[in-house]
Amino acid sequence: MSGWHATVLTIYPGMFPGPLGLALAGRALESGLWRLDVRDMRDFASDRHRTVDDTPAGGGPGMVMKADIVAAAIDDAEAAGPQRPRILLSPRGAPLTQARVRALCEGPGAILVCGRFEGVDERVIEARGLEEVSLGDFVLSGGEIAALAVLDACVRLLPGVMGAEASASEESFEQGLLEYPHYTRPQVWEGRAIPDVLVSGDHGRVARWRRAEAERITRQRRPDLWASYSRLQGARLDNLEGFK
Amino acid sequence: MSGWHATVLTIYPGMFPGPLGLALAGRALESGLWRLDVRDMRDFASDRHRTVDDTPAGGGPGMVMKADIVAAAIDDAEAAGPQRPRILLSPRGAPLTQARVRALCEGPGAILVCGRFEGVDERVIEARGLEEVSLGDFVLSGGEIAALAVLDACVRLLPGVMGAEASASEESFEQGLLEYPHYTRPQVWEGRAIPDVLVSGDHGRVARWRRAEAERITRQRRPDLWASYSRLQGARLDNLEGFK
Repeated sequence: MSGWHATVLTIYPGMFPGPLGLALAGRALESGLWRLDVRDMRDFASDRHRTVDDTPAGGGPGMVMKADIVAAAIDDAEAAGPQRPRILLSPRGAPLTQARVRALCEGPGAILVCGRFEGVDERVIEARGLEEVSLGDFVLSGGEIAALAVLDACVRLLPGVMGAEASASEESFEQGLLEYPHYTRPQVWEGRAIPDVLVSGDHGRVARWRRAEAERITRQRRPDLWASYSRLQGARLDNLEGFK
Repeated sequence: MSGWHATVLTIYPGMFPGPLGLALAGRALESGLWRLDVRDMRDFASDRHRTVDDTPAGGGPGMVMKADIVAAAIDDAEAAGPQRPRILLSPRGAPLTQARVRALCEGPGAILVCGRFEGVDERVIEARGLEEVSLGDFVLSGGEIAALAVLDACVRLLPGVMGAEASASEESFEQGLLEYPHYTRPQVWEGRAIPDVLVSGDHGRVARWRRAEAERITRQRRPDLWASYSRLQGARLDNLEGFK
């Protein structure tokens, strides 16, 4: 395997690998489980000041990243190998989900375009078919930290990166539920005891308790997730009915 | 003003300030508009190996961060000054919104606890009243990149950080809408022209076009945001009716 291949296009190459150079992602990077190319979009400017932005057509505050610069950076990244999803990190994009992360990490990698200033000229989004991806309903000062998040989420799921493969399958969103509560020693801390069932040694009871807690927490905190989960469970039961 | 005060509790202090040391947030940090303290939670361990985690009660893969260690780190951070929101970055938390970002940046700062491994002992979440905050419905290898995102979102809104204050008021989520498309020179690029209205010089038409585009994009991409926006607009009209 030649490794999952990420190319980041940014005007702040010094932000990478940043946190991805340490811990899980950093060890995986060192051992070649994934590869990170970072390109300074200013390298694609043709003037002496390496200009990448210009004032917005129609007026208003801030600056807009130029279509020609962003396109040149993308085209250069594509020359490197097989086609990869072209992602623009943007608060206007589709909110990132664990399903999209799984799909990305099963592919060859990704090209991640980090917008700055007011945004990127709309024409390059259309002309290069950029997939706009958002972390959530908040605004960052640029796409760089969002790109770090996308990469971290993908890399940890690559084969060989996490020690125990089982770690990923029980966590939040993988079953359509938030994760159950965790406890560890000491048995009693500040007068609070670990729930009895977890120290019972009865694996069946533990599993049932965890499932019930995951359902309770999801229902309480995220009625939206709970609704999709319930629909899915209903559909599964209907399918089973069909096999009777 | 003594500056907005963030304390990050992590076992990877080397990840900070990371991307926040550059660009907008980095300049603001240098000029004292905000302050960042980073504490290694391993400093609160009492054994020779600086252990911060232990096996999960009830069994299963991975490790759980110990309640006593996390509590000691929080208590130490609180000794530093006025009470600040205590945030645990966790996929089980409430999804971060621009409204929560605004509220945080209007306060004295925040204590950000970065979970690692399977998670944090539930008892410290209860005992210290941690607010669980999530970036979105995906899983990161730890809370660190999520903390960077929260800080970046907050810092850019601090007074004096962004050049033009107006920059923030027209962007995604501030009006309950996604942002309209941006364009800049050249007038025609790869056969694609900037929409005529934006080069008309008619500020009223430009404003109306941008509003309509923001509404169109929100309706198309985010029916959920569009529904809340429409409800809010309806309520505003009802209020106006009352003044007739």
